[in-house]
Amino acid sequence: MSKITTPRLPSGFNEYLPAEQIEFNRLLGIIRTVYERYGFAPLDTPDIELSEVLLAKGGGETEKQIYRFERGKNDLSLRFDLTVPLARYVAQHQGELAFPFRRYQIGKVHRAERAQAGRFREFYQCDIDVIGSDSSVVDAEFPAIINEIFEQFDFGEFTIRINNRKVLNGFFEELGLSAAATDVLRIIDKIEKISRGDLVAELHDAGCSGEQVARLLEFITIQGENDEILHKLEMVGINNEQFQAGARELHEVLTALRAMHVPERRVKLDLTITRGLDYYTGTVYETSLNDHSEVGSVCSGGRYDNLTANYSKRSLPGVGISIGLSRLFYKLREAGIIKPAQQTLARVMVAPLSPVQLARALDAAHELRAVCPVITYVDDVAIGKKLKYADKLGVRYAVLIGEDEAAAGDVTLKDMQTGENRRMPVRNVCDLLQA
Amino acid sequence: MSKITTPRLPSGFNEYLPAEQIEFNRLLGIIRTVYERYGFAPLDTPDIELSEVLLAKGGGETEKQIYRFERGKNDLSLRFDLTVPLARYVAQHQGELAFPFRRYQIGKVHRAERAQAGRFREFYQCDIDVIGSDSSVVDAEFPAIINEIFEQFDFGEFTIRINNRKVLNGFFEELGLSAAATDVLRIIDKIEKISRGDLVAELHDAGCSGEQVARLLEFITIQGENDEILHKLEMVGINNEQFQAGARELHEVLTALRAMHVPERRVKLDLTITRGLDYYTGTVYETSLNDHSEVGSVCSGGRYDNLTANYSKRSLPGVGISIGLSRLFYKLREAGIIKPAQQTLARVMVAPLSPVQLARALDAAHELRAVCPVITYVDDVAIGKKLKYADKLGVRYAVLIGEDEAAAGDVTLKDMQTGENRRMPVRNVCDLLQA
Repeated sequence: MSKITTPRLPSGFNEYLPAEQIEFNRLLGIIRTVYERYGFAPLDTPDIELSEVLLAKGGGETEKQIYRFERGKNDLSLRFDLTVPLARYVAQHQGELAFPFRRYQIGKVHRAERAQAGRFREFYQCDIDVIGSDSSVVDAEFPAIINEIFEQFDFGEFTIRINNRKVLNGFFEELGLSAAATDVLRIIDKIEKISRGDLVAELHDAGCSGEQVARLLEFITIQGENDEILHKLEMVGINNEQFQAGARELHEVLTALRAMHVPERRVKLDLTITRGLDYYTGTVYETSLNDHSEVGSVCSGGRYDNLTANYSKRSLPGVGISIGLSRLFYKLREAGIIKPAQQTLARVMVAPLSPVQLARALDAAHELRAVCPVITYVDDVAIGKKLKYADKLGVRYAVLIGEDEAAAGDVTLKDMQTGENRRMPVRNVCDLLQA
Repeated sequence: MSKITTPRLPSGFNEYLPAEQIEFNRLLGIIRTVYERYGFAPLDTPDIELSEVLLAKGGGETEKQIYRFERGKNDLSLRFDLTVPLARYVAQHQGELAFPFRRYQIGKVHRAERAQAGRFREFYQCDIDVIGSDSSVVDAEFPAIINEIFEQFDFGEFTIRINNRKVLNGFFEELGLSAAATDVLRIIDKIEKISRGDLVAELHDAGCSGEQVARLLEFITIQGENDEILHKLEMVGINNEQFQAGARELHEVLTALRAMHVPERRVKLDLTITRGLDYYTGTVYETSLNDHSEVGSVCSGGRYDNLTANYSKRSLPGVGISIGLSRLFYKLREAGIIKPAQQTLARVMVAPLSPVQLARALDAAHELRAVCPVITYVDDVAIGKKLKYADKLGVRYAVLIGEDEAAAGDVTLKDMQTGENRRMPVRNVCDLLQA
């Protein structure tokens, strides 16, 4: 007898039981279908890239989290997101792509993060990006897509917060704070986590004068309905070009969202949204579940000036979002919002009562498969064991064929929920399942 | 300006252009849908496993091809197939699974093989297995599934070759060749590649007597219709128990395949099929395309006695198949059988003639998305450029909205293949696309 090795996964890695996996895949399917409905083409880049290429941008926290290894003469790395591979792909194949290039990619990425609940070292990202368009109307498609996906997810109401980095950057310019912009942005980003007093103190430490702090606070606390905020942005009297371009783009995005039938209550202009420090350059998005703020942002993204800067001399603007489904699934499973039920996709289990009816059972299963997924139980075991199996899997119906059914040319349809048995021809079962 | 890094992939890695990716995903979708129709539940194990666990079986050629690396205190490896992770998963979660356990897994695996055309270091495997059933009728489901998938693939006629390792093993026992079985199997496996003379010489070298060689040759050249072969197996007069169990199982598989409506012409008993040396223990399968023998086996698998031997004391039999879609796709693309066409999944591109009709265009796109994938072109460029884009993508229809259309409350539907323009309300376009 061979030695027994304890079956286990490395720390920080995750896999699902069948019922969870079915539910996870159902959600992935919603994302994929909506992405495809909006004309995004699938892309699937390798898990492994050359380290030199993947890390062309260099530096940063992410680099420390990369799974990197040598193989032969190659220095290889597992991708840590889907954006850098997209940049590499677009630069590499730009002559063969049609721009604006719309792609979605759903795939696993790897980061050797400190293991903690809900943070995995391998997780799915579900990304869409449009490369090669400057249009604010394109920016508006992303909230429309988020709206459709989360409506179908049915996790309750949600809010898509929108801002534009040009508004903030222009405002900083106007205040003479451009040099300190990175620090100031980082501090503003904490607005919901720290007290007003600490915020002011940190802004002073970053070199802001009393007047600058006052104007900053006045600005980032602008609130109200979206149209009011847009109006206040006009009224604030800033003649900075960048600021005005940002305000105009926000206006265009909101106008387009109305034409796309996105409910007003789900879209909120929020001047404090920054989404990171140096990456985004225009519209930015952040999505939260109204009843589950503990989950944090469930879908975010934004516009960037030049995707391919590290790989090509051609400048290509882009805009995109990412849904981190693995984390979202974990959090909502914890919160009891996601409740996996069935261990099978089959809606019906077909079983002969004895091996004598095997051929009839296989024939019935064949007919039923034209209508829905079917599971057969053909092992020669007692019918009670077969029904227990159907019950455990969560199959709704059992189609049973014994001597009587075989003689009469029909089957017994058992409703596993009610226990009710009905005799009918297979054709009728098909009609019933199709209805 | 930042330094430009040449965008490229490591040698042996592959990615598709959009049109190829769409076609690849269409084929993956066929596989997934048929797997699900037969009641297989999805599974998705991590790409990374602990080396100690993944290599529990130890040894072999595969071990040299594994991407293995240290991270912190962990010795990690990328999975090289989906069967070992399945064994680990079943052993680890056996208390939570319902047996027979049917799962499908479609995922990437990694092998640092010598790079050559059509052999990738990262490729997809599409596996199904049933764990915990001894039934030959379960064995028959696999050819039925292969039949449905390759019928939908539409790559021309195909043949599913079936054998049973017990027949061969029992025959070897009867001949007193059990000790040399591994060598003899390896030689028989080459029957289509080497001459009859070389075959005989190799068998002699492996220690077979003249009579043993004669009986082996007589046996493995048994041919004819399936029923004839079954009949000849009975007539060959071997009273070995294993041999007879194998012959009986082959009979049961063929009988079940008829009940499952699998065309007889596609299933062929072939006593020379062995599928590797030490892994399979019962039914084995091999599938080839009749008009593309150069592609080799496109789907193979078989039954094994004990999946979880390395991870659990519980003995669980299994049976499964695997489709190596990456290689199949490469070969059929080379052969011109697979011809990617469209660069988008969208069936229609919606575009305003000028920004004035933007809201109308977004509204029309919204309505059309209820029917099919839609791509919008909202950038403010000349209509000629928009139509060129639609043409390059391969979209069938363009829905255009200018001043006249907006005033009349309808759209112009342009058939990109014929060039024909027709004015109609959006609702009629929906009907037309749905038909």
